[in-house]
Amino acid sequence: MSHPVSPLAPKHQPALPPIAGVRLATAQAGIRYRGRTDVLLVLLDPGTRAAGVFTRSKCPSAAVDWCRETLRGGQSARALVVNSGNANAFTGLKGRESVRLTAEIAGKAADCAPGEVFIASTGVIGEPLDATKFDGVLADCAGRTGPDAERWAEAARAIMTTDTFPKLATRRVRLGGAEVTINGIAKGAGMIAPDMATMLSFVFTDADLPAGVLQALLTRGVAKSFNCCTVDGDTSTSDTLMLFATAKAGNAPVASVEDPALAEFAQGLDDLLIELAQLVARDGEGARKFVTVEVGGATDDASAHRIAMSIANSPLVKTAVAGEDANWGRVVMAVGKAGEPADRDRLAIWFGDVRVAVEGARDAGYDEEAASAAMRGDEVTIRVDLGLGAGAARVWTCDLTKAYVEINGDYRS
Amino acid sequence: MSHPVSPLAPKHQPALPPIAGVRLATAQAGIRYRGRTDVLLVLLDPGTRAAGVFTRSKCPSAAVDWCRETLRGGQSARALVVNSGNANAFTGLKGRESVRLTAEIAGKAADCAPGEVFIASTGVIGEPLDATKFDGVLADCAGRTGPDAERWAEAARAIMTTDTFPKLATRRVRLGGAEVTINGIAKGAGMIAPDMATMLSFVFTDADLPAGVLQALLTRGVAKSFNCCTVDGDTSTSDTLMLFATAKAGNAPVASVEDPALAEFAQGLDDLLIELAQLVARDGEGARKFVTVEVGGATDDASAHRIAMSIANSPLVKTAVAGEDANWGRVVMAVGKAGEPADRDRLAIWFGDVRVAVEGARDAGYDEEAASAAMRGDEVTIRVDLGLGAGAARVWTCDLTKAYVEINGDYRS
Repeated sequence: MSHPVSPLAPKHQPALPPIAGVRLATAQAGIRYRGRTDVLLVLLDPGTRAAGVFTRSKCPSAAVDWCRETLRGGQSARALVVNSGNANAFTGLKGRESVRLTAEIAGKAADCAPGEVFIASTGVIGEPLDATKFDGVLADCAGRTGPDAERWAEAARAIMTTDTFPKLATRRVRLGGAEVTINGIAKGAGMIAPDMATMLSFVFTDADLPAGVLQALLTRGVAKSFNCCTVDGDTSTSDTLMLFATAKAGNAPVASVEDPALAEFAQGLDDLLIELAQLVARDGEGARKFVTVEVGGATDDASAHRIAMSIANSPLVKTAVAGEDANWGRVVMAVGKAGEPADRDRLAIWFGDVRVAVEGARDAGYDEEAASAAMRGDEVTIRVDLGLGAGAARVWTCDLTKAYVEINGDYRS
Repeated sequence: MSHPVSPLAPKHQPALPPIAGVRLATAQAGIRYRGRTDVLLVLLDPGTRAAGVFTRSKCPSAAVDWCRETLRGGQSARALVVNSGNANAFTGLKGRESVRLTAEIAGKAADCAPGEVFIASTGVIGEPLDATKFDGVLADCAGRTGPDAERWAEAARAIMTTDTFPKLATRRVRLGGAEVTINGIAKGAGMIAPDMATMLSFVFTDADLPAGVLQALLTRGVAKSFNCCTVDGDTSTSDTLMLFATAKAGNAPVASVEDPALAEFAQGLDDLLIELAQLVARDGEGARKFVTVEVGGATDDASAHRIAMSIANSPLVKTAVAGEDANWGRVVMAVGKAGEPADRDRLAIWFGDVRVAVEGARDAGYDEEAASAAMRGDEVTIRVDLGLGAGAARVWTCDLTKAYVEINGDYRS
């Protein structure tokens, strides 16, 4: 199934530069889709280190289990295999067999141990994934891999399910006397897609950094990016974000995540993760408006984040945005239901720059017309000040439209 | 705004019998609507005791604050005033003034102290409520009150906002050697309605029970009824459930909530609360299917309840039901995201009587056609067995349709 490209899609796709030690190729394995690529193979030079963060679901996919175990066994990475069309989630023993076989086939193709192969799957849940389909396909891919921009674009397309546009981002930063590159691709948006297609993102860099530093940077970065992005509040079984560093940049060694020499790299990585997370929200199913929710004045940042998520996940707030309705009463509701410290009589609310409520009541200068105008663009900002403390948070989401219901309700009927 | 009557509405409305000590009247105060009643006055004879449970929102309405304070001051109740069209929520100091003035006007009309008047408001949020509109209206109502079935039906209609049908229920039970009656009315469904109309429910009985017992029974009953009902997961600022007992039945005294003589009354009250809660879910905005979610095998009941709510509030599960799509993968997702103990490999899932998944994978005997058939009726049951313990819960909800988005997105635009 394909849908019209989101009106929130970026006008231009960036051309990603090569990263020393990273080569990519895609293929059609015919897992579910016809007439499109559905497999990505990334070959990583010896010395590449990996870090990853995965879904907090209590029912994770077989691929997520594999990646977690493999990272525990060691951070050396030589290959990444991603397929779309089948999530290999909730497939029981068969699913575990399937990832093991995939790792063996990829290991042969990449001339490495299965324990150096990372795997991600996205698409239908509950369907057994026939890994024998990778036999031959991955060996063929290995012979065709390349480092150029077109390969990155192909890679971003091959992992799409119901995404309406490929998601790519790149940064170039200084690190320990060297220029280093960070490339990233992503697909999906949490549980936006039918049959539990999932959020997957893969970031690559030529930086030479210890695995522990990579993991610390990624864990810190995801809290400010993907964990601040929601479409429907439905957490997937397969969310996967991985960072691969090939250590080819020749930068001076960095011992710890606290090393000031990391500052620019960390900033560049955070920016890239935020850009990818926003692209994911911009492709939310049925999305017509990109929504930024900013919460300030909370007792602490965690409390601000929970309140921001309560607003961003409220069906009534999201439908109001879809209807270009400056319905701040629903924002009050969402603040109230979050269960976090809040004092109705200190609450202030803005749509865009228009303050609609202050001190627990409608703003005396409230102008319905100005507020409505702030809802009309395809980017809407909802700002809340709780007036309690210094806690702040920012999250991104999209509106809830009939198209969301249509896409998710009519899919198999 | 009016919408077609929900296809899930009961075929017949019950005729509620009189309750000694309870007289009702409605009127048109012109608060927001035209050509319909928007005020309900209930007069309660001296000796009537009240109990109540209210929204857990951190931004409660002025009326909720008033009822809480009034109950703390004493459980004696002589009058109940309910208006629709304006929730008097997030109205600051003006809101507090408004409820105080309403209580004074009602007190004069009912010849009682303002502290014996209970107030509930539902409708638009953030709009100041002009209580002077009750002046004259309530005194007029007081002169027209009556106990008969038609008054109960009028009362249920007067408190509706975007409800598509009035919600009434009655029970007759034995208590301490006497026949006692329990009548209840309700409106709305959590935050289903535009502009934060809310769930309100009022239950009346002639039973002679101490206030402490009434409160204990109500608190226990709400946990099994209204707190097991969700339409969109958006908790209102004004949810109010009150129980009034006129003590006219002449039943033998009951000292404590543990008294076995209470058994039949407690059961009757619980049944009535559940019936009203289900009526509320059946009138969920845009609802086409009534959904029962049953979770068993959890580590405890609280955990089962959180998992059941995670399923019942999942947009992807609700849109799948709307699409008559036996999409059990989304049920797995909702179980996984609940954050409660769950073992993917012990999970079993049923739609109706059709087991679609068992032991962490699709049921070998899974029949897509049979599963789809279970989705076609206007009542759908989703059952999950976690296989971990004895914890169980049951919640009610409805599907998520385009009509929900339309009603909540197009309301003010």
